[in-house]
Amino acid sequence: MKLNLDPDRKIKIPVDGGKVEFKLKDIMAVPKEKISLKKDFDPDFTGGFDDKAGALRQVAANVDRLAEQQDKLYAQDTYSLLIIFQAMDAAGKDSAIRHVMSGVNPQGCHVTSFKAPSSLELDHDYLWRANLALPARGMIGIFNRSYYEELLVVRVHQDLLAKQKLPPETIDDDIWKRRYKEINNFEKYLSDNGTVVLKFFLNVSKKEQKKRFLARIDEPEKNWKFEPGDVRERGFWKEYQQAYEDLLNETSTPESPWFVIPADNKWFARLAISEAICTALERLDLKYPEVDDARRAELQKIRAQLEAEDK
Amino acid sequence: MKLNLDPDRKIKIPVDGGKVEFKLKDIMAVPKEKISLKKDFDPDFTGGFDDKAGALRQVAANVDRLAEQQDKLYAQDTYSLLIIFQAMDAAGKDSAIRHVMSGVNPQGCHVTSFKAPSSLELDHDYLWRANLALPARGMIGIFNRSYYEELLVVRVHQDLLAKQKLPPETIDDDIWKRRYKEINNFEKYLSDNGTVVLKFFLNVSKKEQKKRFLARIDEPEKNWKFEPGDVRERGFWKEYQQAYEDLLNETSTPESPWFVIPADNKWFARLAISEAICTALERLDLKYPEVDDARRAELQKIRAQLEAEDK
Repeated sequence: MKLNLDPDRKIKIPVDGGKVEFKLKDIMAVPKEKISLKKDFDPDFTGGFDDKAGALRQVAANVDRLAEQQDKLYAQDTYSLLIIFQAMDAAGKDSAIRHVMSGVNPQGCHVTSFKAPSSLELDHDYLWRANLALPARGMIGIFNRSYYEELLVVRVHQDLLAKQKLPPETIDDDIWKRRYKEINNFEKYLSDNGTVVLKFFLNVSKKEQKKRFLARIDEPEKNWKFEPGDVRERGFWKEYQQAYEDLLNETSTPESPWFVIPADNKWFARLAISEAICTALERLDLKYPEVDDARRAELQKIRAQLEAEDK
Repeated sequence: MKLNLDPDRKIKIPVDGGKVEFKLKDIMAVPKEKISLKKDFDPDFTGGFDDKAGALRQVAANVDRLAEQQDKLYAQDTYSLLIIFQAMDAAGKDSAIRHVMSGVNPQGCHVTSFKAPSSLELDHDYLWRANLALPARGMIGIFNRSYYEELLVVRVHQDLLAKQKLPPETIDDDIWKRRYKEINNFEKYLSDNGTVVLKFFLNVSKKEQKKRFLARIDEPEKNWKFEPGDVRERGFWKEYQQAYEDLLNETSTPESPWFVIPADNKWFARLAISEAICTALERLDLKYPEVDDARRAELQKIRAQLEAEDK
């Protein structure tokens, strides 16, 4: 699949009484262009649009578009779609998955949440567990976090490397550079073999994260979602932002670009994500399998046989 | 979990302008009661109700109920739910899964479609591949077909047994009886360890199946769904009905009963299935994890820490 990656391409999303309009580069780390997370991307960006209810109606319409594409993807059984979500805590990954993917046939969609690796997983290379969870042909696979954590939490807390049982000589200054390349090669391989990989970084601001953490503390029914560890990681905000910026610059490729989704407004994030997924699937030009003449003749023979049963 | 299995228990489903009412035994092979598939169950049964649109509105309401229960199931992380669908071809398994489970958070729900076993799977015992696909705690797992095929297609076509590489001395007249027991033990084990197993047999009539096969032949966009093998299996209708009847009598247990869902009317099937799943989940009395005093104090400490950041 070839995406249209012109940075100035206009994205026009119809919404009640008008449209949201912005440029591709407002929500994508355009491959081969060097980006600055801080200067080029505003977590509060909404394309000047502020009609939350209208946007959510368009999200619902996109879910229908997506369900239609998914049905063809499944029937055609040639391509698969892997959607990766990465973000700081409370950026809205879980709720984006719930709102954008609910309504899609669960038979064609499989979500995998990657947590800290188990001891079995640590006994393998870091892509092993991702391979086990890859979508089969015809399927949509969603990774809630992914092997990109190898360039995020593991880079910010380098003592985690020691647990990975790597050959000691491979733990050197080049390890992150090698991992970028390994991941690019992995995704190129997937793409060449029929799996479209779309990657979403939900870009939340430190201020908005704080607001959401406080809500998780203040609303008792949200308490269970709150891990003290989440606040600990907030202490490494700057290091994570640097790790994300490097990762966006090194692994946003023409086959598998990184979307940088403004995430301070959940409704806008859902709109942008659902639009990006629909657009990518529509570019695949998916089709229901065609029936050839031989098959058509066979079907007619079966038809006659069924009709004759009663006689 | 203890289900209320009184055969005469009334099921009342509110629908626009009234309610659908029938008895449990109209849609369940009540454990320990001997059933006759032909005499006790009518594929065209709708409880005397015929308001399709009203029923589908109630299905939509049940999907919301189900989504709410699923959220608690996931948060509580103690129980899991395994839902098994079995039926003759074109009975509506796929569409029931799509309509009843779409709307549930895909992060908490995983569908597995079991096809003819692969050579890797045939190198293992018949429950192996099912074990790999069992829902984790907090999750809903859906089996589209299942290990019950061992008592259906394998029993109707006994030459399939030869491919299973079983020790020759185990292929004797008692093999089906042993499999009933093995499966009952397996499900009892799952139930005792927190997995609720609900089983739905979609009971379609031979006449309705023919109608749906003809539609798949006559509507070009449905052609791809039609396998000539489906018609071949229709030739063994009587043998399959006997296999289903035996299976319902032998494996409908108090922990994991078989629902016999009248499936000639898809709208009624969806209503009955969604109601049964909601009722079972509600009986688990699921709760969001409670926060104890120590944890509450910790949360307040974190709160103060977050508030102090700006100073």
